[in-house]
Formats: sequence, structure tokens, C-alpha cells
Amino acid sequence: MKIYEMRQAPNPRRVRMYLAEKGLSSEVEFVQLDLQKGENLTPEFKARNPMKKVPVLELDDGTCIAETQAICRYFEELHPEQPLMGRTPQEKALIEQWVRWLDFYFFIPTGMAFQHGSGYFKDRMKCFPEWGAECRTQAEKFFGFLNSQLEGKEYLVGDSFSIADINALCTVDFNKVNALAIAGDQVHLKAWHERISARPSARA
Amino acid sequence: MKIYEMRQAPNPRRVRMYLAEKGLSSEVEFVQLDLQKGENLTPEFKARNPMKKVPVLELDDGTCIAETQAICRYFEELHPEQPLMGRTPQEKALIEQWVRWLDFYFFIPTGMAFQHGSGYFKDRMKCFPEWGAECRTQAEKFFGFLNSQLEGKEYLVGDSFSIADINALCTVDFNKVNALAIAGDQVHLKAWHERISARPSARA
Ligand SMILES: N[C@@H](CCC(=O)N[C@@H](CS)C(=O)NCC(=O)O)C(=O)O
Ligand SMILES: N[C@@H](CCC(=O)N[C@@H](CS)C(=O)NCC(=O)O)C(=O)O
Repeated sequence: MKIYEMRQAPNPRRVRMYLAEKGLSSEVEFVQLDLQKGENLTPEFKARNPMKKVPVLELDDGTCIAETQAICRYFEELHPEQPLMGRTPQEKALIEQWVRWLDFYFFIPTGMAFQHGSGYFKDRMKCFPEWGAECRTQAEKFFGFLNSQLEGKEYLVGDSFSIADINALCTVDFNKVNALAIAGDQVHLKAWHERISARPSARA
Repeated sequence: MKIYEMRQAPNPRRVRMYLAEKGLSSEVEFVQLDLQKGENLTPEFKARNPMKKVPVLELDDGTCIAETQAICRYFEELHPEQPLMGRTPQEKALIEQWVRWLDFYFFIPTGMAFQHGSGYFKDRMKCFPEWGAECRTQAEKFFGFLNSQLEGKEYLVGDSFSIADINALCTVDFNKVNALAIAGDQVHLKAWHERISARPSARA
């Protein structure tokens, strides 16, 4: 199995951290693409993922699975022990709710702030800097929301570590490209961030 | 159990159609909110969903689950028979890939085109009409992508009806607010659309 990715990019990190937590990192060969050079825009790569994004998991029979959470789902179904996507129907639903909140209301604004603000991908997209600035404000607000949600809690959902913690960590950390960091008074977020960052998987 | 929704809104329709396919519609009491009047912006509703969006599922013990796919996941886990989210790990992953493609690259542009273009929610958000216009172009392109993917296929993923078909149908239909419809030469999309629209669940 192969995963096409770029080491520095935040979405691939979500999958690497997940695989490290599951003890599955060595099952996969990682293939590096240079996104800014457009190595993800070739016809070969587009055949793997028509959205032209990383990460993509390629199975040995050539089947390709794109999208971070879909890749993780594949492994979660094959290796349900030490679940990171919940145990009961209610836990599974609440983790999925959080994964979606994190994607829609934190990761996307974060990515839009970066892309529209910096012009990093200006060879392939139209940039709207004012929209980027608005997205940066939304991302910044989400730091405050996370802080309030983490009061008195060790993990984001329920009482065990889950893929929601992984996605939140990777998105918080990626916000350094937007010059956003945990504020001094966001003590619950800060404590959680230190706890999750101390896991070996955070360096995968 | 209650679901807070607004009948005309596209995200609640995804859940109603899913429940109808599973034969579960009568398990739930539907509570209507008027979104344009801001009935989703009250402190009471924000306690149910801090993102202030519908649909929200409220269990009998008061636990709330927001996000379309998280609500469907809850029911899918409780009622796995006649699966709409896949059978095998690979099917589950590919359906999840598609659900995410549809949300990120079709539903979100569709919603942004509508909201930034029409000012429907201008009491609660800053509108960027040029960004709305760019999103409309992206939504329009996705019609073409769907058409190409449906060539020779009865359903979007694999060879059975799934939640991906539900999400695609609801998003195609919602695009009437953007004055976007299936083009005359998009014959595969048109045939699929007729097939899926003929299911009783499409009127749920
Ligand atoms: N929703 C996708 C997002 C993937 C994504 O946006 N990946 C970025 C890197 S973090 C990418 O490939 N960007 C390249 C481009 O936009 O050209 C997922 O969850 O995998
Ligand atoms: N990602 C959410 C989207 C929910 C959403 O955006 N719902 C719309 C109605 S279709 C809404 O409640 N809008 C009200 C508002 O933005 O104030 C989901 O999958 O449930």
C-alpha cells in the first residue's frame, strides 16, 4: 500500500498521526509530492484523485481512496481494536460530529485564510484576500471555542483520545501559517495541546 | 427523539431521505425552525448545536448530535441492515470519500454561492459577492464531474444505492437557488437524477 502525501502539509499529517496511534505506520509506503511545484496536478495523479489533493491511499490492486477521514475509516474497519472513531453508536456519532465541525468550521477557514491570504497556490486558483481575512477571523474564533469546550476535559470527545483530537491538533498547529497561536488566557486549550503534542504520534 | 430542522433547507432533506430509505422516519418527531427569522440563533438552540445549524438530533436523554452525516451514522450503527454507508472496509471508505467530495467540493460551494450571492443570511454574516460568483462556477463544474463519473453507472459508488446518492441528489436539487440545473448534454447525470428522484424517499 502507498500513501501519496507531502510531509509538511496538514492533511497528510492527520493520517500519519492516526496510523502511528494504531501502530500501522509501517504497513504503508509514503510517496512524497511537491504540491507547490504542482506534482499533484499531473494526469497520473488526477487519475488517483480527481480532486488533485493529498493524501491518497493506493491499495495493492490499484484502488485509490482519497480524503483523510475515508483513509482512516478504511484502516479503522480493518483494525477495530483500540478504536479512534468511537465504540457505541452515540460515541461514533459524536466523534463524527466533531470531525465535521473541525473540518467545516476550523480546517476550511484555516486553509482558505492561508491560500487566499498568501497566494501559495495562485497558479491554480483565484485569490480573494478579503475573504481570506474573514476566514482568518473565523479560524481565530474557533481557538476560543475549542478552549471553552476543553474546560475540565482531557480529550475533545467523551473521555478517551480519538481522531477528533488528532484533527484538532493538526489544525491548531497548521495555523502558524496564519500567524495564529493559542492565546495566553486559553488555558484549557493550552493544557490539552501540551498533552496531545506529547504523544509520540504527534511527531509521526 | 426529535430532529430540529427546516423543511425547505437542503441539509435536513439529506437526513429525512436517509431515514425514509431506512424505514425509520416515524421514529423521529420533526421540529420546524425558521432559519431566516433566526430561530436557530437563540441561546436555547445554541446549547443544542454551538454551530447554530440544522439538522440536530436530540435523543430522549437530551444528548444532541449535530451534522447530517453524524446523525445518519448514529442510525446506521443502530440499524446496520440495508446498509447505506457500505458493507466492506473498502466500500465504507469509498462512500466516505464521496460524501466528503460532495460536501467540500459541491455542497459548500453551492451554499457559499447562495449565501454570498443572495444575502439570505446577511443579518449574521459578511457577504463577498465575488467569492459567491467563484463558488457558483465551482458548483457548476461539479455538475460536469458528476456527469462524467456516472457514465455507465446506476449509482454513484459501487453498484448499490448509498448515502452518496442521497447527498448528490439533494445538492443538485438545491442548486436551483443558484439558477443551476443539469445541462442538456449531461445525459448520464440526467438519467441518474430521474432514477434517484423516482424513489419515494426523494419526497420525504
Ligand atoms: N478534504 C481533503 C483535503 C485535502 C487537501 O486539501 N490537501 C491539500 C494539502 S493539505 C492539497 O493537496 N492541496 C493541493 C492543491 O490544492 O493543489 C482531505 O480531507 O483529504
Ligand atoms: N455541515 C452541516 C451543515 C448544516 C447547515 O449549514 N445547515 C443550514 C441549513 S441547510 C443552516 O442551519 N443554516 C442556518 C444558518 O447558517 O444560520 C451539516 O452537515 O449538518
